[in-house]
Amino acid sequence: MLKLFEYNWQVRKDWFEWCRDVSREELLKKRTGGIGGILHTLFHIVDVEYSWIQGLQGKPDFTEPFESYASLEQVMELSDRFHEEVRSFVAAWTDDMEMKVLSDVYPNGDPINFKYGEIMRHVIAHEIHHMGQLSVWSRELGKAPVTANFIRRGLFG
Amino acid sequence: MLKLFEYNWQVRKDWFEWCRDVSREELLKKRTGGIGGILHTLFHIVDVEYSWIQGLQGKPDFTEPFESYASLEQVMELSDRFHEEVRSFVAAWTDDMEMKVLSDVYPNGDPINFKYGEIMRHVIAHEIHHMGQLSVWSRELGKAPVTANFIRRGLFG
Repeated sequence: MLKLFEYNWQVRKDWFEWCRDVSREELLKKRTGGIGGILHTLFHIVDVEYSWIQGLQGKPDFTEPFESYASLEQVMELSDRFHEEVRSFVAAWTDDMEMKVLSDVYPNGDPINFKYGEIMRHVIAHEIHHMGQLSVWSRELGKAPVTANFIRRGLFG
Repeated sequence: MLKLFEYNWQVRKDWFEWCRDVSREELLKKRTGGIGGILHTLFHIVDVEYSWIQGLQGKPDFTEPFESYASLEQVMELSDRFHEEVRSFVAAWTDDMEMKVLSDVYPNGDPINFKYGEIMRHVIAHEIHHMGQLSVWSRELGKAPVTANFIRRGLFG
């Protein structure tokens, strides 16, 4: 489990670096698909990862809007700020947590139960999926995207 | 490990269904980013998953070109044809296979070693990443994409 989180953190860092060469206007530009913009997508990934990991610990979601963090520096700082909490939870993950139950409610008030293992994989897939969207927008900008390869990243020593 | 493969197979099936309402012209149209087209992406996912799983078993890659499978029916059939081989390998996966070594060569002949666990995660991330690209192209077509959610798919019973 940890390895795919490490992959996501590495890829996210690469995208932050990629953003340094892109104008603020392009980073904020409204685009087709997903969350609808490059920086907003990176904010969303950080928000969703942190909020689920908080939820698994019985702690509150992050609820602030993108508009309060609409610069590369602010999104990078937010990612850094949340990282230690997320990292330490993921590092302490054990297989016996897979089937633990998180009880949640839909916006309409209906109850729903998730397994912890389900949420962890949801968080992993969520980030990879959104990075795929960034890769299309990257080519639209005429820039090569960050590689999505898991191999050749030194993740297996 | 199995759960993320199951997720990918379910999402892929959903994308095949999604394709049924899209014209052949749109499925084959050249697009910006990734492999550059919807059906070609689905073919590529099937090819890459199968070829790596073959490699882990010391069996040959799939090497046929997209042009030989350029219809929805053919790509779906190819996916079905390869599925049993892939599924049975993934189902038989055990943690002690993680650090097994696959020796490969770069196109230039240089040797490279991969760990089996590294390849398995590469295959998982590869498909999710490309599905993210499909989701952007889907919105460009004015169609809602297949959901990328891992949760609420019945993957944890």
